[in-house]
Amino acid sequence: MTQNNSAPRIDLQRLRRDMEALGAIGRNPVTGGVDRVSFSDADMEGRRFVAGLMEDAGLAVAMDGAGNLSGRWEIGEGAAVMLGSHLDSVPDGGMFDGALGVLAALECVRAMREAGWVPVRPVEVMATAEEEGRFGGMFGAQALAGQVTREWLETARDDGGTRLFEAMRAQGLEPYKALEAKRPEGSIAAFLEIHVEQGPVLEREKKSAGIVTGISGVFNWTIRLEGEANHSGTTPMEMRRDAFAGLADFAHGIPELIAEDGSETSRVTIGKVLVEPDFPHTVPGAAEFSLVARDMEEDVMRRLAAGAKARIAAAAEKHGLTVSINETSWLPPTPCHPEVIAVFQRAAERLGLDAPLMPSGAGHDVQVMAGITRAGLIFVPSVGGISHAPQERTEWDDIEAGTNLLLCAAMELSGDASRELLR
Amino acid sequence: MTQNNSAPRIDLQRLRRDMEALGAIGRNPVTGGVDRVSFSDADMEGRRFVAGLMEDAGLAVAMDGAGNLSGRWEIGEGAAVMLGSHLDSVPDGGMFDGALGVLAALECVRAMREAGWVPVRPVEVMATAEEEGRFGGMFGAQALAGQVTREWLETARDDGGTRLFEAMRAQGLEPYKALEAKRPEGSIAAFLEIHVEQGPVLEREKKSAGIVTGISGVFNWTIRLEGEANHSGTTPMEMRRDAFAGLADFAHGIPELIAEDGSETSRVTIGKVLVEPDFPHTVPGAAEFSLVARDMEEDVMRRLAAGAKARIAAAAEKHGLTVSINETSWLPPTPCHPEVIAVFQRAAERLGLDAPLMPSGAGHDVQVMAGITRAGLIFVPSVGGISHAPQERTEWDDIEAGTNLLLCAAMELSGDASRELLR
Repeated sequence: MTQNNSAPRIDLQRLRRDMEALGAIGRNPVTGGVDRVSFSDADMEGRRFVAGLMEDAGLAVAMDGAGNLSGRWEIGEGAAVMLGSHLDSVPDGGMFDGALGVLAALECVRAMREAGWVPVRPVEVMATAEEEGRFGGMFGAQALAGQVTREWLETARDDGGTRLFEAMRAQGLEPYKALEAKRPEGSIAAFLEIHVEQGPVLEREKKSAGIVTGISGVFNWTIRLEGEANHSGTTPMEMRRDAFAGLADFAHGIPELIAEDGSETSRVTIGKVLVEPDFPHTVPGAAEFSLVARDMEEDVMRRLAAGAKARIAAAAEKHGLTVSINETSWLPPTPCHPEVIAVFQRAAERLGLDAPLMPSGAGHDVQVMAGITRAGLIFVPSVGGISHAPQERTEWDDIEAGTNLLLCAAMELSGDASRELLR
Repeated sequence: MTQNNSAPRIDLQRLRRDMEALGAIGRNPVTGGVDRVSFSDADMEGRRFVAGLMEDAGLAVAMDGAGNLSGRWEIGEGAAVMLGSHLDSVPDGGMFDGALGVLAALECVRAMREAGWVPVRPVEVMATAEEEGRFGGMFGAQALAGQVTREWLETARDDGGTRLFEAMRAQGLEPYKALEAKRPEGSIAAFLEIHVEQGPVLEREKKSAGIVTGISGVFNWTIRLEGEANHSGTTPMEMRRDAFAGLADFAHGIPELIAEDGSETSRVTIGKVLVEPDFPHTVPGAAEFSLVARDMEEDVMRRLAAGAKARIAAAAEKHGLTVSINETSWLPPTPCHPEVIAVFQRAAERLGLDAPLMPSGAGHDVQVMAGITRAGLIFVPSVGGISHAPQERTEWDDIEAGTNLLLCAAMELSGDASRELLR
């Protein structure tokens, strides 16, 4: 086999056939959705199906103790370029979420091999386990990163009370082996993922792909305002301590909060609201609500937090309320690696693809992998922004464009140029 | 007995003793609250206690088929002046709500008799049954007004599923006799009630009593806004159809709505709020909430309704939401009778009492009685505005002032002057 410098391209029909075959595994016959919840029979069947495809492609197939499935092209030397995503789904989810990132990675390797491309370093296709968080966290990727602990293994349960331990054993996995899934330091040169956007931006902007700058940071507050529950008929407006009125004033000001303290990537959401006593004829004595705020810059997150606190305090003072704020989490942003972003940008240019930079508001395997290697993420559009539902869909043309972008970047990162780039 | 024109006054110590004795009946030993829920054993024991006081005062005592207890001073001729309120309580309520209006009425009659006052028409003390609505409506007063139907009797149940029918039978009452409780047309010359305010206005204004201009009208809406539930991380702010944001914008504008379309007596309340799916990380796809609006003028209610509709529509348009509004009730205001208001005002002047005119945002027996006679209502302050709770309290000085106001008005309406006044 000799090196061939003509630009290889992926075979969309082959990728589509594989996607549809994988999407039929765990398919809910009523809704048309995909049920490959992690460590379910269907999840394992999906892994076996992909393992077969990997073998057919000539890769060395292995599954680690966490259930991560690897197909490795043992070639060249040194740290591997890893491409992949996850194979598990949410209950009644879509056929693209995760699965695309695995099969697109495999298709890239097939395309490279068929084109006679000779990488200077190994290329590995990774299908992670349990990314959707049935048992909390991103178990598979975190096992690769050495973040799974004995305690996590022994105590994690799903919402139905099933233990992670039992779910794994039922599939013939030895849970404690997950502690050995950690990849040696320096063994992964880069991690590249392609994923459906799960949001409306690319579709609206009519782009086939986007290059993700990072996973936005997020803080999660539970806020409780307390006033006084009073009879709605006998209490004049100016004598009320209406906790919901305080919440409404704050919520109304969120666009202004973002304009003053946020950025274009800020997302501020009140998703959960509880009013007490929640009776039409009683002025609310208490209001408890969630505030979830995201941004790509931790400094902006801090400004948003300070601005939100000040606005909540002002609304509370206006209505005679007391405030308590409980911060349930503060996760800093995870930037994608600038070198990988640059590789994606060069690849897009070579392909003549207009792939805008964009943040990711949702979590993905890439954010865990970013802790142990140079990591990058490509988005392809979600029709109607819909994901985690049977209606989840991405146009095949966009999948072709995005996967070729992945291929092009993988070639740069596994080729001669990478000796300089990935020192 | 000769007529005595010196101004009689009530005996506060006697009234207080009676109030405290009645308040001990049905007392919850843990909370200190009063449990005389209608047609309970304690309710009936309270009625027997009051019947005894009426007999001691020389009145002709009778209970009608609805459980209304009457103590009648058979004197003079023609239509009677009726004074009273209700004896039932909410669960774990206070000792003043209703009970004050019954025992103050009795005290007024005792004071008249002791002063040698000779009315030209009968004076009747009325203790209505089931005003608090355990079975819906104001059963006792509505029976006096002829508004109780066979269907109501046969179908009404409380929240626990107990039938009105059974609750009455268990107390030895014959439910169908409630259909005969209707008072003949023209047999009641006027109805006067004294009640605790159950709100904070009189206490704030440091007044011992208020003269109620009427029971405010009220409309009750359930409003549903529907947008689109989206991932809070992947959906940019400007692409959301956030149903809670629409609700917040509307709720924030309520003070402006009242300023533009309402009056000083307007009360607009959002007391019940449901957000869907009610998950912190999901932009709310729907928000359902109650809107209860009151005013003393039906024209103002109509303006408030139109203004609220326009503002809800504007908030919905801004956020891309659909709106549905379900009007569950529209009750017009019930004005107190201007002649009775004037009698109260003259009485207050004679007593040197500064008793402001004020609306009632809560319902009382008087609003039913207003349908069949000239009706009027006096409020005395509620400490802290609290009612329907064990902490319900009114200062005894204020009770004395308010009851003397009732006495003075009852004398005018039952004396010689009434021949002219109540033609």
